[in-house]
Amino acid sequence: MADPASQLIVPVILSGGAGTRLWPLSRAARPKQMLALTGAETMLRLTARRVADPARYAPPIVVAPAEQAEAVEAEVSGLGMLILEPVARNTAPAIALAALNAAANDVLLVLPSDHLIGDVERFGTAVQRGLPLARADWIVTFGMAPDRAETGYGYIKRGAALAEGVFAAERFVEKPDAATARSFIEQGGYDWNGGIFLMRADALIQGLERHAPAILAAARAAVEGQAREGLRIRPEAAAFGRSPAQSIDHALMEKAERVAVVPAAVRWSDIGSWAALHEASDKDAQGNVVEGIAMAVDASNCLIRSEGPLVAAIGVEDLVVVATPDAVLVVPRQQSQRVREAVERLKAEGKSQWT
Amino acid sequence: MADPASQLIVPVILSGGAGTRLWPLSRAARPKQMLALTGAETMLRLTARRVADPARYAPPIVVAPAEQAEAVEAEVSGLGMLILEPVARNTAPAIALAALNAAANDVLLVLPSDHLIGDVERFGTAVQRGLPLARADWIVTFGMAPDRAETGYGYIKRGAALAEGVFAAERFVEKPDAATARSFIEQGGYDWNGGIFLMRADALIQGLERHAPAILAAARAAVEGQAREGLRIRPEAAAFGRSPAQSIDHALMEKAERVAVVPAAVRWSDIGSWAALHEASDKDAQGNVVEGIAMAVDASNCLIRSEGPLVAAIGVEDLVVVATPDAVLVVPRQQSQRVREAVERLKAEGKSQWT
Repeated sequence: MADPASQLIVPVILSGGAGTRLWPLSRAARPKQMLALTGAETMLRLTARRVADPARYAPPIVVAPAEQAEAVEAEVSGLGMLILEPVARNTAPAIALAALNAAANDVLLVLPSDHLIGDVERFGTAVQRGLPLARADWIVTFGMAPDRAETGYGYIKRGAALAEGVFAAERFVEKPDAATARSFIEQGGYDWNGGIFLMRADALIQGLERHAPAILAAARAAVEGQAREGLRIRPEAAAFGRSPAQSIDHALMEKAERVAVVPAAVRWSDIGSWAALHEASDKDAQGNVVEGIAMAVDASNCLIRSEGPLVAAIGVEDLVVVATPDAVLVVPRQQSQRVREAVERLKAEGKSQWT
Repeated sequence: MADPASQLIVPVILSGGAGTRLWPLSRAARPKQMLALTGAETMLRLTARRVADPARYAPPIVVAPAEQAEAVEAEVSGLGMLILEPVARNTAPAIALAALNAAANDVLLVLPSDHLIGDVERFGTAVQRGLPLARADWIVTFGMAPDRAETGYGYIKRGAALAEGVFAAERFVEKPDAATARSFIEQGGYDWNGGIFLMRADALIQGLERHAPAILAAARAAVEGQAREGLRIRPEAAAFGRSPAQSIDHALMEKAERVAVVPAAVRWSDIGSWAALHEASDKDAQGNVVEGIAMAVDASNCLIRSEGPLVAAIGVEDLVVVATPDAVLVVPRQQSQRVREAVERLKAEGKSQWT
């Protein structure tokens, strides 16, 4: 067995989820991680690039819906393994598939594929800081430095210090209400849960065995029956389908002992709304983010973006305008999460070609 | 000579003008009168339909740019004559061409092709009311009943009563400032100048001879050299090109004697902006006008219209969103005249394909 200290981390990139929060750009057939939201490259490609240093990282395992196989292979260079989920069962079963396909002593770095990390170097430092604990069978989470009392994210409360910049995770908190979020920011010691985890494969499996045995059993059966074609792995569909659908937070993190948190001020965003993309993007002097075939005349604090028709926005404030060749969204920036209402109405009216 | 009382009125429909005020729907190649703004039919077709009663009106003379010949013939059924302007020279020269091609004793009803008249029956009544004066060599204008202190229109001040519902036109006022417009509405006795005129052809020619001889001379020379193909008449280009470009208001109305005004509460609008179209259109319970492939979710007092991509507008107020397959406009309703700024910038940036 190789010297543990020289062992490479195995990135596990989760590329599931459809998501309508960035409609009309994100669609059933083109999920958020396949969009180039913050530059010329897709979120998935940027995620893979963050863990591309061969001195530290092994080729990544990507877990993705079966229908995304070609798209993932096109976006992720140096792919190690592509696990194709026959059905979507949320993150805990997806991560179980990866752990069961890894070596027991592999240290896995689980990464959502559709989040933004502004400071990649500092992120790498945080991962290295968590590594000794992960090797010692801790589950290591990363606490994204909050800069506002956001109610759209979960929080992790820091407990006792375990090492320099590493704390026991005292508590996981689901998306709080506004007053609770404000109290967290005022008190300090709370970080956003960015859904990034570092742990040994066997530690994860043992945790699931104890706290989510049905998920582990289904994943085990699916892996026993899986088919392999080159880098592609197809877990057995019927077995995997029997897994409960649960997030890794619910299934494991909130229950497990020996969970650590490494605070990481890495300018993270889940880009969960057009407002969040505006927040995370570089702006012009008037606070606008203008991308594609778009023009702002005397506009301020707007996100205006088109990959279709020319968009001319005149005299508007705090507005989101996003155009594709077949659909245009117009919504006040602070209401941009309401895009779901439009998508639901389109579905209800039988206009699914636009969703 | 026929009994004057049974003589048909000859409509003269002016179909010139490009107009960018309704961009992106109106374009250099598709002017406002060729748009179906208030229903299924184009403004030009609606204009022709207003004067289609064969008991009262002769087949219309249309004056249009040469490049619009096919479009006019497609829109105007029962066309009498199509005068194709070789170059645009504003309304006075265009009307002169029509008068010189009509019989001297024809009573002409001059109509812009891109205005809305909500109450067509009442409009017909107003025309009949003005007819005796027009036959007696007066120039009869129609005073559109104002319902607000609009600064975008010219005004006509009523003078002495000449007959029931007919007054001498005491004064023509160019687009006033806001304070002046308010004083007009408070005083009463002022109507909007809708650019609709009724007069004998020879009365018009005599008026031009006295007040705008250069225009009349150019039009005369152009008509002397004109070519005829079926209903199409092509005035001689070089001669017509020598005409000053002037509106009929400037060239004649403001100067002539024996000008009458018939007040007409016909729900008139020149639809000179997206705000004016919103004003003139039927609205839903939230004050929205939604046309085409468009959806309003919790929007109020908006104009949302698409003939291209699906438009979903959520949570917006007092906004104009207009989409075509290649361009989308987003502007606050009360700033909708600023569309010119976008068009000018597109031209300046060499993006004339969108103008």
